[in-house]
Amino acid sequence: MIRLSDIGEDALIRRLIRLVPLDPAPAAGPGDDCAVVDPGPGHASLQLLKTDALVEHIHFLPDAPARAVGWKACARVVSDFAAMGGRPERFLVTLALPPQTPVAWAENLYRGIGECLTRCGGVLAGGETSSVPPTSAAVISIAATGSVRREHLTLRSSAHPGHALLVTGTLGGSRLAKHLAFTPRLEETGWLVSHFKPTAMMDLSDGLARDLPRLALASGCGYEVERGLLPLTAGCTVEQALGDGEDFEILLAIEESRVAGLLAAWGGEFPELALTRIGRLVKAGDGDSLHGGWEHFAKGLAK
Amino acid sequence: MIRLSDIGEDALIRRLIRLVPLDPAPAAGPGDDCAVVDPGPGHASLQLLKTDALVEHIHFLPDAPARAVGWKACARVVSDFAAMGGRPERFLVTLALPPQTPVAWAENLYRGIGECLTRCGGVLAGGETSSVPPTSAAVISIAATGSVRREHLTLRSSAHPGHALLVTGTLGGSRLAKHLAFTPRLEETGWLVSHFKPTAMMDLSDGLARDLPRLALASGCGYEVERGLLPLTAGCTVEQALGDGEDFEILLAIEESRVAGLLAAWGGEFPELALTRIGRLVKAGDGDSLHGGWEHFAKGLAK
Repeated sequence: MIRLSDIGEDALIRRLIRLVPLDPAPAAGPGDDCAVVDPGPGHASLQLLKTDALVEHIHFLPDAPARAVGWKACARVVSDFAAMGGRPERFLVTLALPPQTPVAWAENLYRGIGECLTRCGGVLAGGETSSVPPTSAAVISIAATGSVRREHLTLRSSAHPGHALLVTGTLGGSRLAKHLAFTPRLEETGWLVSHFKPTAMMDLSDGLARDLPRLALASGCGYEVERGLLPLTAGCTVEQALGDGEDFEILLAIEESRVAGLLAAWGGEFPELALTRIGRLVKAGDGDSLHGGWEHFAKGLAK
Repeated sequence: MIRLSDIGEDALIRRLIRLVPLDPAPAAGPGDDCAVVDPGPGHASLQLLKTDALVEHIHFLPDAPARAVGWKACARVVSDFAAMGGRPERFLVTLALPPQTPVAWAENLYRGIGECLTRCGGVLAGGETSSVPPTSAAVISIAATGSVRREHLTLRSSAHPGHALLVTGTLGGSRLAKHLAFTPRLEETGWLVSHFKPTAMMDLSDGLARDLPRLALASGCGYEVERGLLPLTAGCTVEQALGDGEDFEILLAIEESRVAGLLAAWGGEFPELALTRIGRLVKAGDGDSLHGGWEHFAKGLAK
């Protein structure tokens, strides 16, 4: 019998989506950071849809502060809207919690969600609470709508060979602290799509080694990474930068000719956040082959 | 320390929603079957948002057929759209499963979701998969968008004292089979809002004894139920009809003067599905007081 741990998340998703009706005319193909819905030609904005889940023991430990867990659950979704050039709007929060959970824990979780919504400009539109058996892990699932102006929509699939690859911030070591307290790059991506619109963009949730191949594949490209250029979090190795995951930084592609102008303008706009050229897209079949990163359902969980 | 099992679901939700930013101008108040979003005066339809979750051991047993679990997870959401006079559109499916779950189980779950979407007219727009620890319960969380024509929107909160109360189908005994195989009353509610628009409507998920007080409270009313009129599932008692839950039938209020016409027309339109007058709304503070029904987080779970 084949089990989920035998095939991994990407293969599982490919098998599952064959079994259900899909949008016959999607505004963007499946597999991007969010689903994109076109409300019709008279509308300046497209709707974005996203769902994401945090599981106790997998994405956070039982002793993690509930407020930080709530922030993280909400910020992960905001990060996906940012990665498409959009903004968050309405949130649906599902809590599946053991009955012995302290009410104060749930309240602090919601305080963290509320802080993130206030900071990023979303509102709670609805929710669901359910018990799980007393020995089961808590699950927090957040679905949300967002919006993006048509001309700002930035997919994973629209880059070409020769485009430069850049990342915001530093990579690696997220689990020490940042994974519970990261700031979604909403302001930065809003600036990018207005001033130096990338040819492709995604947020780094599973590690560069897993996420970059996804962007390259979606764009029909290969990729080359200059490991010596990777912006490492202090104390981290290249391998950690590639594989730790949960950086929630932005990976973007842009025409080589625009890189110098972008870097100069970025330094003036966001002096405290690095933007680093790390490599380039190449023809499909050429370039590097990265391995590692976070894999759900894997045998011997990496974290 | 106060725990979730001490306060119950409704009290928990009241405490939580104070802690987050809410829509400053919602198209409908909180606490209805779905959230309602008004896209602006030029639009004939409103958007509906809903999220719902199924938890192993709570909403289904480990030996339940995965295909039926998938159908149920999807049909519960469709039922909420139906209860507001709307239709389902785009679905986001989150699976949080133990790593040893057979791939075939997840595939059969998705087949059930696909059958429900095909039957009810929705599409999959996105999803999320995550592992849970090997000993944790599986959680299936489904969020979806729907739409409702402005003139068809039917809330819980718009009925008045004196309006008659009716239910579709029969009540009680759902856990024997129906809870995994029910048909959302989408066709029936679509007909109702076009021909005999109710003054209030909701779907019965937690049992009439718990759900009717919610509708009455939302409408600022009390209620009277004629127990002898309750349409009982074969072999069920009145107490089961009131308290079992998961009937997924429709509870509706309508002006007393329109009941005879509605019942006559209904019999011609839906000859195989009962529609039964069970009581009426009265002034707030008057009438009956029902107790029981399904309570999440309760000590000594009722089912």
